[in-house]
Amino acid sequence: MSNLAVTYELLHRDKKTGARRGVVHTPHGDIQTPVFMPVGTQAAVKAMRPEQVRDMGAEIILSNTYHLYLRPGHELIREAGGLHKFMNWNRAILTDSGGFQVFSLGKLRKITEEGVRFQSHIDGSRHILTPEKAIEIQEALGSDIMMAFDECAPYPADHSYIEDSMLRTCRWLKRCQDAQTSPEKQALFGIMQGGMYEDLRRESAARIVDMDLQGYSIGGLSVGEPKAKMLEVLDYCVDLLPVEKPRYLMGVGTPDYIFEGVERGLDMFDCVEPTRIARHGVAMTSHGRINLKNAKFARDFTPLDEECDCYACRHYTKAYIRHTLKAGELMSAMLLSEHNLHFLIHMMQEMRKAIEEDRFLEYKQEFYEKYGIND
Amino acid sequence: MSNLAVTYELLHRDKKTGARRGVVHTPHGDIQTPVFMPVGTQAAVKAMRPEQVRDMGAEIILSNTYHLYLRPGHELIREAGGLHKFMNWNRAILTDSGGFQVFSLGKLRKITEEGVRFQSHIDGSRHILTPEKAIEIQEALGSDIMMAFDECAPYPADHSYIEDSMLRTCRWLKRCQDAQTSPEKQALFGIMQGGMYEDLRRESAARIVDMDLQGYSIGGLSVGEPKAKMLEVLDYCVDLLPVEKPRYLMGVGTPDYIFEGVERGLDMFDCVEPTRIARHGVAMTSHGRINLKNAKFARDFTPLDEECDCYACRHYTKAYIRHTLKAGELMSAMLLSEHNLHFLIHMMQEMRKAIEEDRFLEYKQEFYEKYGIND
Repeated sequence: MSNLAVTYELLHRDKKTGARRGVVHTPHGDIQTPVFMPVGTQAAVKAMRPEQVRDMGAEIILSNTYHLYLRPGHELIREAGGLHKFMNWNRAILTDSGGFQVFSLGKLRKITEEGVRFQSHIDGSRHILTPEKAIEIQEALGSDIMMAFDECAPYPADHSYIEDSMLRTCRWLKRCQDAQTSPEKQALFGIMQGGMYEDLRRESAARIVDMDLQGYSIGGLSVGEPKAKMLEVLDYCVDLLPVEKPRYLMGVGTPDYIFEGVERGLDMFDCVEPTRIARHGVAMTSHGRINLKNAKFARDFTPLDEECDCYACRHYTKAYIRHTLKAGELMSAMLLSEHNLHFLIHMMQEMRKAIEEDRFLEYKQEFYEKYGIND
Repeated sequence: MSNLAVTYELLHRDKKTGARRGVVHTPHGDIQTPVFMPVGTQAAVKAMRPEQVRDMGAEIILSNTYHLYLRPGHELIREAGGLHKFMNWNRAILTDSGGFQVFSLGKLRKITEEGVRFQSHIDGSRHILTPEKAIEIQEALGSDIMMAFDECAPYPADHSYIEDSMLRTCRWLKRCQDAQTSPEKQALFGIMQGGMYEDLRRESAARIVDMDLQGYSIGGLSVGEPKAKMLEVLDYCVDLLPVEKPRYLMGVGTPDYIFEGVERGLDMFDCVEPTRIARHGVAMTSHGRINLKNAKFARDFTPLDEECDCYACRHYTKAYIRHTLKAGELMSAMLLSEHNLHFLIHMMQEMRKAIEEDRFLEYKQEFYEKYGIND
């Protein structure tokens, strides 16, 4: 165990569901799981200082290989002493592989066995991302957890497309593993694909688990399929992954999806939503979302959420935040980002406590009722 | 003295210049002078949390009557418990009267004896600002120092225009004084006008000093005149104001203008520049301004200013700040605003120390040489 960058320790299993309470040990500290990871796409969690992200309890953040490769460049970050030092964040960092971003480029990219050729969304310059390159970049960044270079296949897609894609992703994973130089410093997580096809998910799982990686992720979900379909896939997917390793559900971070994932035994989640909606004036509260643009908040001199003890709720009213939003002051994004990240991190803290006390389902039901989620 | 909101205490006079070291006592704490006041136009110092502004040593900030009257409205801020509470700032606040802003509206405003009719820059709605209204708004805001409603006359302007304008500003000042209800809670500062004409400046001073206000400001400078002309006017203006009251030079806040003002005996300064240039990627350093857009900083892994101990300089490199600037991350405005405000506040701290030790001119010369200001 000690020669691996990342290990998973199971602390407790909820008696009534698959939910599990654990710790992921990393070179930059322990992560209590299940965990929500704030996203700092371009080496900054938007509108937040790192100390603020740390002080609200975040133990790991996510950053993006695609963006940092294009700007400022991974060699520059290597020269800066790595991403932790560059962005002043000394807890754990997970980097995605860039796969998801280049596949999102649509006509600007082309897939071959070698990798993906694409044009930069910034200046149109031409690049190729391969499994080896994705690892080289992530090793330059120095993240604690590197994600394998994969294809996040579209939805809907037919069986043969998904099969080809999944098998290529498995071959790419092997190349990632071969390219990796320091598994004792940086973990490589494999990504299960297979679309909505159970046979392909099973085959994908069998192949990647066989490579004995330090953690696994379920990819290719939340790509446009109905929620019921996603839950159906999750139902059989989670148990295909090894119980002794961390399990990560990529790009899924709204409260209901997190609850469903945790209930099935997943440990890690990320989503840009809390900071993105913050910049549009939306707050997550214990009674659901509110939009501060709404005129009814103009003279509301109460905090965003009476039950919240974040910086924004301790010091500011809805009326003030609405004013700064309408006035175009950066303060509104700063306060709403703080609040929304705090909300999700606090939700995870409560969830972990509930698992420890074997009352995950009760907490889920209580949360859903207040937040207004219909199962 | 004790029934006045604001009083001035002279601590020391520089032996070789007019520079003076003092304290302005206000209902929200003492202000060490000479002082630079950060600007929070719309009830927020741009890209900064109030604690950050406080922790760098700011004892007073400036906010804008015109903007807050239009949005969110002074009655709303009154209901919120006043501006201090609304924006979470418990040190002193100075509010301008809105005069400068409405006069800047050009064709959208019309001056009469009653006041100024104008159209909102936000939605074109029609309003009138009078001396009485300016006081009503500032009393609703609850600032520690209210500025009189005046006309900041244009440059150049002929003697008769400036004379008419100055005399009307004096009549408006009397109306402000009459409208004021609580001089023990909020000070009213008078504003000297008179353009570049010495006879009119003298007459303006005589009239406003006669009204025995709690402080005085020199207005109508830095409106486009050459620097030498401004200094010539300042040379005879400062001594026209009472020595036992605070003296404020409005809207002037670049280092050289502050030094020239302090040398002549002025106590208070404000300027939006440090936060405005921050949003454009410019940092003030002990060796002059630098623009982080410049490619030469791409791999510069040193702080903005080696001599600075602000948050940005302790934790980040030029390369990182340049990256966030190019990537459009709010972080760049956050870090550069912090740095630039800290720079000016630190400069004032050093200046106060120099005055106490009768070496103001030496400090000025040393600063000018390093910063690259030619006298």
